[in-house]
Amino acid sequence: MTAGATHSVVAETSTGPAGAAPLLPLGFTASAASAAIKKPGRNDMGLLRCPAGATLAAVYTTNQVCAAPVQLDRRHLRESRGHCSAILINSGCANAATGDRGMASAVELADVVANACEISPVAVQHNSTGVIGVQLPLDRMLPQIAPMAARAEHGTIEEFARAIMTTDTYPKWSSRTVEYEGRSCTVVGCAKGAGMIHPNMATMISIITTDAELTPAEINTHLRAAVERSFHRISIDGDTSTNDSVFALASGAAGAFPSADVGRAFKEVARDLALLIVRDGEGYERGIHVQVTGAPTDSDALSVAKTIASSLLVRCAVTGGDPNWGRILAAAGRAGVVLDVNRLSLSVGGVALFRHGSPAETPLADREAAFRKSTVEVHLDLGGGQGSEEFISCGLTKAYVELNADYTT
Amino acid sequence: MTAGATHSVVAETSTGPAGAAPLLPLGFTASAASAAIKKPGRNDMGLLRCPAGATLAAVYTTNQVCAAPVQLDRRHLRESRGHCSAILINSGCANAATGDRGMASAVELADVVANACEISPVAVQHNSTGVIGVQLPLDRMLPQIAPMAARAEHGTIEEFARAIMTTDTYPKWSSRTVEYEGRSCTVVGCAKGAGMIHPNMATMISIITTDAELTPAEINTHLRAAVERSFHRISIDGDTSTNDSVFALASGAAGAFPSADVGRAFKEVARDLALLIVRDGEGYERGIHVQVTGAPTDSDALSVAKTIASSLLVRCAVTGGDPNWGRILAAAGRAGVVLDVNRLSLSVGGVALFRHGSPAETPLADREAAFRKSTVEVHLDLGGGQGSEEFISCGLTKAYVELNADYTT
Repeated sequence: MTAGATHSVVAETSTGPAGAAPLLPLGFTASAASAAIKKPGRNDMGLLRCPAGATLAAVYTTNQVCAAPVQLDRRHLRESRGHCSAILINSGCANAATGDRGMASAVELADVVANACEISPVAVQHNSTGVIGVQLPLDRMLPQIAPMAARAEHGTIEEFARAIMTTDTYPKWSSRTVEYEGRSCTVVGCAKGAGMIHPNMATMISIITTDAELTPAEINTHLRAAVERSFHRISIDGDTSTNDSVFALASGAAGAFPSADVGRAFKEVARDLALLIVRDGEGYERGIHVQVTGAPTDSDALSVAKTIASSLLVRCAVTGGDPNWGRILAAAGRAGVVLDVNRLSLSVGGVALFRHGSPAETPLADREAAFRKSTVEVHLDLGGGQGSEEFISCGLTKAYVELNADYTT
Repeated sequence: MTAGATHSVVAETSTGPAGAAPLLPLGFTASAASAAIKKPGRNDMGLLRCPAGATLAAVYTTNQVCAAPVQLDRRHLRESRGHCSAILINSGCANAATGDRGMASAVELADVVANACEISPVAVQHNSTGVIGVQLPLDRMLPQIAPMAARAEHGTIEEFARAIMTTDTYPKWSSRTVEYEGRSCTVVGCAKGAGMIHPNMATMISIITTDAELTPAEINTHLRAAVERSFHRISIDGDTSTNDSVFALASGAAGAFPSADVGRAFKEVARDLALLIVRDGEGYERGIHVQVTGAPTDSDALSVAKTIASSLLVRCAVTGGDPNWGRILAAAGRAGVVLDVNRLSLSVGGVALFRHGSPAETPLADREAAFRKSTVEVHLDLGGGQGSEEFISCGLTKAYVELNADYTT
């Protein structure tokens, strides 16, 4: 990327877990600590600071049984009018379904962070991830906060990304650089996955940071557009959690950049993180990427793509590498979208399976090969319009069931 | 049941698979044959006749990719104005996603049945169950029809019930007797299950017969009420099929009976059959029975009950006998119903787990025992109204995944 170019560029700089973790954008510092929330010997609290203040956007779980910290965050986002100076995340305990005591814990944690960082409590966002229905060990957590605030520094995102992991097998991050008129800014995100290997585990959490200057309205627009095409296009088990949250913060330390390019960087980072989450899903063996075209509307295409990608029978077939394309059509048929079977065409991995209402005469060996790729690429054309969408999932495996069932409390 | 009682009685007479199969109601005859559709050596065609004609009601799959015979049946039901004299069912091949040739096969089968039985083709219903995307072997099927029509006799439902099985491990039937003023009629049903052990398998099919006199409007009312509380309250994998159908036929040979009692018999028979289907579902190890009360409406209660019973994480926990009640609340929270967490109360097997927004302090041993019953009884009270509903499912098992994935074409 030539410095001094007059047009802006979104350059890929890093995608986890391969390669070194990216540096935090200017204006951000981070630290981690261990409070032995679930088990000792690993960091389970992460603090991200923006001492000069950042604009904030967030997308929270739509689950009606939402965790205490998410309820608190919603209030803080509203009362701060989209500003934030510190985010505290803990793993090991979700603080969900914990009643008044759980809410009191979330409030106390945010207050202690605010004191330690010398900011207003409403400038604090806080989330928890882990077991549902268990209270946080505040006695072990609270003493960690002031030291964490004191030692937060401008390094890579790695320590923070590791501290928020629950059953993830590796930390997840992604970054992009935007260059414009000789200056550059970065968009750096991290995430913890939807892996729910241990029982009662919940939550996907992601934080996207940038040093570009963005108003609360701008960062909100970028975040929502990015989430729509990333975290809202993946499914591992359909169980949205009590704590799911995606945060975005802009420090503005690198100045202003063309909005479209920053937005594009947000989208790319969010999509990287979403794919990392699926690939680290419990019992992951083989991916599914469903594209639906020719739908009356994009929304119809999304309904069909999501239903196919979430079908247990399709997901079992993908695991087995078995070319059971009838299951794909059957799933499409129950998506709540009016279909004309005689206009449907289905291919998998580029191999035609069904054309305009009749089975395609494709050799079995080709069909089998298409279902045995590391990601099974499903393309269903509805033959009825310009709407198109995609959805990403993975095969349902015995390992998934084992990890989620064969646990002894 | 005392003969001559002046009030009517719905007496249980038989529920499969234990005990002898019930006799067909008066006016019906049946036969079976083997066309070696999928494999030789077993009956895979069943013919049910009502030579004097029956009133007909049917509920067909809502799947947009619906099989050729279902499309034909819809037309016949409409054109016959709810009358039927013969039903032909085959197993081993679903005749779904088979294009124009598949439709021609369904039409030809119905025509040959009509000829053999000397009735109009619109008085024939016909369905297929088995592999999707494969054509029926008409050359082997057509010659069986005239002999089947000739040898159909008034015996038990067993031979027919066995002929329509695909991966069911046992035939499914249920019957009730209604007595009124010294006379009696019977309601006798059979079903094949949703087990989709082999790939591409589809379809739940059930046929309920009675010798009570019912108009097309009456039998339609009874069937829909019965289906609503039975087949519409069970789920094994959420994949509604291309062929799902429930038929009801009334010969009238036993005369008229109080409508409410016949309706009750329909409901009981349908519920027996639905439970038999779940218990014979693929990889079945442990059942789930979810009751939701205190909802704003019955429809809200049903949404919550269905979401809980279908949640993969809840279903895995049930398989593992693990008291992960947080997953039940998390599933309830994403059912699309507005909930107040502080009014929720959850118990499993009568053991309180969550009361008005906070975890109940129940000993772990009690919680574990509740999750290790042969059927896990979940009761969630939403604390917000008079609406209540139930839903029935089963744990998700490694055997399910294995049966549906580890198949080599």
